[in-house]
Amino acid sequence: MSKATSDTKAGRVFLIGAGPGDPDLLTVKALRLIQGAGLVVYDRLVSKEIMDLIPAAAERLYAGKALGNHHLVQDEINELLLRLAQSGRDVVRLKGGDPFVFGRGSEEALYLARHGIGFEVVPGISAAAGCSTYAGIPLTHRGLATGVRFVTGHLREDRSLDLDWAKLADPDITLAVYMGLQALPEIAGRLMAAGLPADTPAAAVESGTTPRQRRVVGTLDTLLGLTREAGLQAPTLLIIGKVVGLADELDWFGKP
Amino acid sequence: MSKATSDTKAGRVFLIGAGPGDPDLLTVKALRLIQGAGLVVYDRLVSKEIMDLIPAAAERLYAGKALGNHHLVQDEINELLLRLAQSGRDVVRLKGGDPFVFGRGSEEALYLARHGIGFEVVPGISAAAGCSTYAGIPLTHRGLATGVRFVTGHLREDRSLDLDWAKLADPDITLAVYMGLQALPEIAGRLMAAGLPADTPAAAVESGTTPRQRRVVGTLDTLLGLTREAGLQAPTLLIIGKVVGLADELDWFGKP
Repeated sequence: MSKATSDTKAGRVFLIGAGPGDPDLLTVKALRLIQGAGLVVYDRLVSKEIMDLIPAAAERLYAGKALGNHHLVQDEINELLLRLAQSGRDVVRLKGGDPFVFGRGSEEALYLARHGIGFEVVPGISAAAGCSTYAGIPLTHRGLATGVRFVTGHLREDRSLDLDWAKLADPDITLAVYMGLQALPEIAGRLMAAGLPADTPAAAVESGTTPRQRRVVGTLDTLLGLTREAGLQAPTLLIIGKVVGLADELDWFGKP
Repeated sequence: MSKATSDTKAGRVFLIGAGPGDPDLLTVKALRLIQGAGLVVYDRLVSKEIMDLIPAAAERLYAGKALGNHHLVQDEINELLLRLAQSGRDVVRLKGGDPFVFGRGSEEALYLARHGIGFEVVPGISAAAGCSTYAGIPLTHRGLATGVRFVTGHLREDRSLDLDWAKLADPDITLAVYMGLQALPEIAGRLMAAGLPADTPAAAVESGTTPRQRRVVGTLDTLLGLTREAGLQAPTLLIIGKVVGLADELDWFGKP
């Protein structure tokens, strides 16, 4: 009884992006899979409002990760998903944002693929898109940004960020930094040292798209002080670039 | 009867991202607004499957743009949205992808804001996320890409692309190029001239996320020939970077 026999038909794994927090930003497919789930493996960044959509009878397994202990725990998550699928159960693997944008969903998918488990991936609204939009900031805008770049400001272990600052310091693009609050001093300093003007508009969005959203708007030079003054907490998305200059005019969220 | 009086309460405009094509990738909010719409202003890139979700009784206005005639027509679209809202009607403004990622939604929002019209923006799954995921290609992956950059390869009038190729030619990021098929010769050539290795994995995805999706996988050097051989057509997303090397193992779409 304790182990699946080789006759057990393996289950499938649905790697689902839950988006930035607002349950209205789930995709139709994500909502349908969540509401039909019997077993959900979820992350820390999935919002309470979205967790409330899981059927009461469904089993829930928490797969959050602790800071500084990524590698081991990611391996354990991969193994957990494999084991559950091999036991014959379909698994809803729910991740904040988009599984294939800083979500490490591709590591889980690769592990499953290499063990012959069928899977599907459901893209989600990524934090950069959701939080920027709800903060009234477009990622591109004619004359202000020819493109956008997503990077993570998440520090691993005790290392500093391993990024090519000269390539990042581009006044013609928008920079969206995931999990960037803790590393903001380094990010702002390095970008200015690499030539990005100190008065480049910059914003920080805490708990974006949720009723708890808070937005701070300043410049590369002033943003750190402003976020400290406001007491901003993770999860916070940083947005750096001329498009942030539109934030006041386009601030629609919660407005009549 | 022909003009709204100043007593007419203005309508609201909902700037909605319809995603890359698969109606299952609409957000819950987008679907609700579409199904409740009385008036829809839509673009060329909204898929037939999504257009079919609009109520039969709703009025539909096409606001597609012709190549080489962008500026004038965008102004006309802005003016159309304003006029409809001022007449007291709520407007569902449906755009392919995400309105704030190469969607020029922010130009429409800005115009409405400056004329005192209330609006909301509903982010959509952008082509880079949707088409990549359905092509089995993650945008980031530990050890392969520290981030991702979105650019547009759409040529305006007769000019060539105005991009900083030295900053784009970064072997440590993923490059997602919207509408890149026509400019592929220039894009590949310039990136290689700027130092990106010719054997950098690269893919092209036509009609991504729809039943008509076609995927071509090669390298920076071979992709042009392969897309011509396959006869790929617009809309096509290009994906350039080491993550494309995972495409065969992660090719899940349409698989059991």
